[in-house]
Amino acid sequence: MNAKNIDKYTKEPGLVELKYFNLPEGEMFLLESGLKLPELKIAYETYGKLNARKSNAVLICHALSGDAHAAGYYRGEKKPGWWHEMIGPGKAFDTDKYFVVCSNIIGGCKGSSGPNSLDPRTGKPYGLSFPLVTIKDMVNAQKVLIDSFGIKRLLSVCGGSMGGMQALQWAVLYPDAVASCIPIATTYKHSAQQIAFSEVGRQAIMSDPAWNGGDYYEKGHPSAGLAVARMIGHITYMSNESMEKKFGRVLKKEKLGYEFTSEFEVEGYLRYRGDSFVKRFDANSYLYITKAMDYFDLQKDDKLSKAFKEVASRFMVISFSSDWLYPSFQSKEIVKALKMNGIDVTFCEISSDYGHDAFLLEFEEETKLIKHFLNTTHRRQKGHNDK
Amino acid sequence: MNAKNIDKYTKEPGLVELKYFNLPEGEMFLLESGLKLPELKIAYETYGKLNARKSNAVLICHALSGDAHAAGYYRGEKKPGWWHEMIGPGKAFDTDKYFVVCSNIIGGCKGSSGPNSLDPRTGKPYGLSFPLVTIKDMVNAQKVLIDSFGIKRLLSVCGGSMGGMQALQWAVLYPDAVASCIPIATTYKHSAQQIAFSEVGRQAIMSDPAWNGGDYYEKGHPSAGLAVARMIGHITYMSNESMEKKFGRVLKKEKLGYEFTSEFEVEGYLRYRGDSFVKRFDANSYLYITKAMDYFDLQKDDKLSKAFKEVASRFMVISFSSDWLYPSFQSKEIVKALKMNGIDVTFCEISSDYGHDAFLLEFEEETKLIKHFLNTTHRRQKGHNDK
Repeated sequence: MNAKNIDKYTKEPGLVELKYFNLPEGEMFLLESGLKLPELKIAYETYGKLNARKSNAVLICHALSGDAHAAGYYRGEKKPGWWHEMIGPGKAFDTDKYFVVCSNIIGGCKGSSGPNSLDPRTGKPYGLSFPLVTIKDMVNAQKVLIDSFGIKRLLSVCGGSMGGMQALQWAVLYPDAVASCIPIATTYKHSAQQIAFSEVGRQAIMSDPAWNGGDYYEKGHPSAGLAVARMIGHITYMSNESMEKKFGRVLKKEKLGYEFTSEFEVEGYLRYRGDSFVKRFDANSYLYITKAMDYFDLQKDDKLSKAFKEVASRFMVISFSSDWLYPSFQSKEIVKALKMNGIDVTFCEISSDYGHDAFLLEFEEETKLIKHFLNTTHRRQKGHNDK
Repeated sequence: MNAKNIDKYTKEPGLVELKYFNLPEGEMFLLESGLKLPELKIAYETYGKLNARKSNAVLICHALSGDAHAAGYYRGEKKPGWWHEMIGPGKAFDTDKYFVVCSNIIGGCKGSSGPNSLDPRTGKPYGLSFPLVTIKDMVNAQKVLIDSFGIKRLLSVCGGSMGGMQALQWAVLYPDAVASCIPIATTYKHSAQQIAFSEVGRQAIMSDPAWNGGDYYEKGHPSAGLAVARMIGHITYMSNESMEKKFGRVLKKEKLGYEFTSEFEVEGYLRYRGDSFVKRFDANSYLYITKAMDYFDLQKDDKLSKAFKEVASRFMVISFSSDWLYPSFQSKEIVKALKMNGIDVTFCEISSDYGHDAFLLEFEEETKLIKHFLNTTHRRQKGHNDK
């Protein structure tokens, strides 16, 4: 290990490890559908220290393909967590001040209970016998974890994309437990177009013969179907502008070959992203998570402002100018509905060419906004506690 | 047959039938790739009458999933051609005045030479031994057909989407043979994002085991893969607005079932469109046609204005405000490059919520614009001929 690596591992968040929380054996976890999960395991990571008053905790919620590994390095790995640039000493989520928690969602495939984990009743992976979960269920599982730390009120809940849905759901479901909320590049309900993209991805997986009704863990995984689903996803995560800048019509070879190989750079990129995804992600989880997003609807058949009636958090809502998957107008509707309830809300549309992916890439802009917002929340929170 | 049906069949274009043109036996058709097609068959339809001077011919070019059946009815069928509302007496393409031709593209699967037609050398379907074709090849095949009528100059070439690419290619390749050109909802080159959507569709087909390297005509077709490809396409043809208006979050049943069936209306619609497409379209053709679109690039590595240097047609370029697959800015770039060559060009962006599909739906607006444009072209053409 060279000097640079030692520094990498020792500097907070530095070396991190995945931890697990389990409901006591025999305890069931009730889901929104009314069904019960016979066990609950939550994989999570923490960065920074929880203070004595337990008032400095920030929950980070991840997106579709994210996981609990938000920052720092696993021993021997070169790639840090997915939001490493945002979490650490002096960063947006400053670990010198805050205790940051990130847990893998239930329904996921990175350590928390999901279709690929073992059903205690059979000793085999659940597969499709795992009950459908919702964003509310993901939040309820996170609440169990947060309760286990003895935290009564989170300083902030923050997340991008599906993570933003969880953040919104926290503020609505547990108003007293959330001092502030930062939903990024997200929506308050999946639109028809968003459901459509989810559904095509699911169809790609389910029409792969290897999927086998979700029962494939002891056989070959539906890699081809999952790769296609991921490729569709990737197009929606980038913008027309960013694709044009990154690839344009650049060829992989010198000239067109008049054949069905991947000839344009953009084709090669998509195939590569599809193929690398199947090595790290479970196809059934893709089905469960996209379904949870499709079910997400805070508005229901009523006015959105009514959904926010009990909300007691401060808000900072962030969107990106070129994000066409979760476009700014959806964030603006959230802001409007919050304002109608007299809630303290700041809205920032960050100008970016990166499309939806911007929430994972525009660190500098996000840092400026979030750092200040958390500082203010923390200061007010202290005042609140001192009273 | 009731009175209404008699009227439907007798009123021009009324009852129509598919006709075929064949290159003389043994004659090869040279392609842009340098390869030769051992035969050339073109399926086509005509509406209206060619005048003595052969100066009133209009060529309609179809899009990805279109065919030669642009207007009128086949005997016993209830559904007219795909642009029936635009072609007929008194319509935009007025068959009282004009002789309208529409032919199936080569590489297609509706009667013209393509991967599903018989290779005269083997007596079996070509499959992937059919050579790759380009937009230029499609146009060259149409030119052979137009020549066979003795038509020296087309009054107009018009098409939407990939049909628009053909129209542009005609004006560039055969400047003397095109009096006017109407490219609708199209582009002068496929962008990285447009290639990406094509590629995902192809991957969906090619990863279906039934595809079998394109050799499936005597076995089961890759229906699952083609259906997924079509579903992806459909999302790109509609706009966020039109999907929201048509489906929103409306459920097929009374309430959410917490299961992986198609629960939202939009899911059911996509599955239906996917399933109905596989009954009428060949998966290999989908590969060939999307590849031809991806190859389309009038600009190459030079300025677009240079591509239009020899162009001698009048132009009307039409785009639609909510079309995000072939967005208006691409049409504007065409207009700009034409203007830089001093070409007579009119640009119209039709305000519509229908997205890319608008070119098949906004008849009224298109009719107003095209009718007048063709009239003027016809009048000027007459003057031209009388000189």
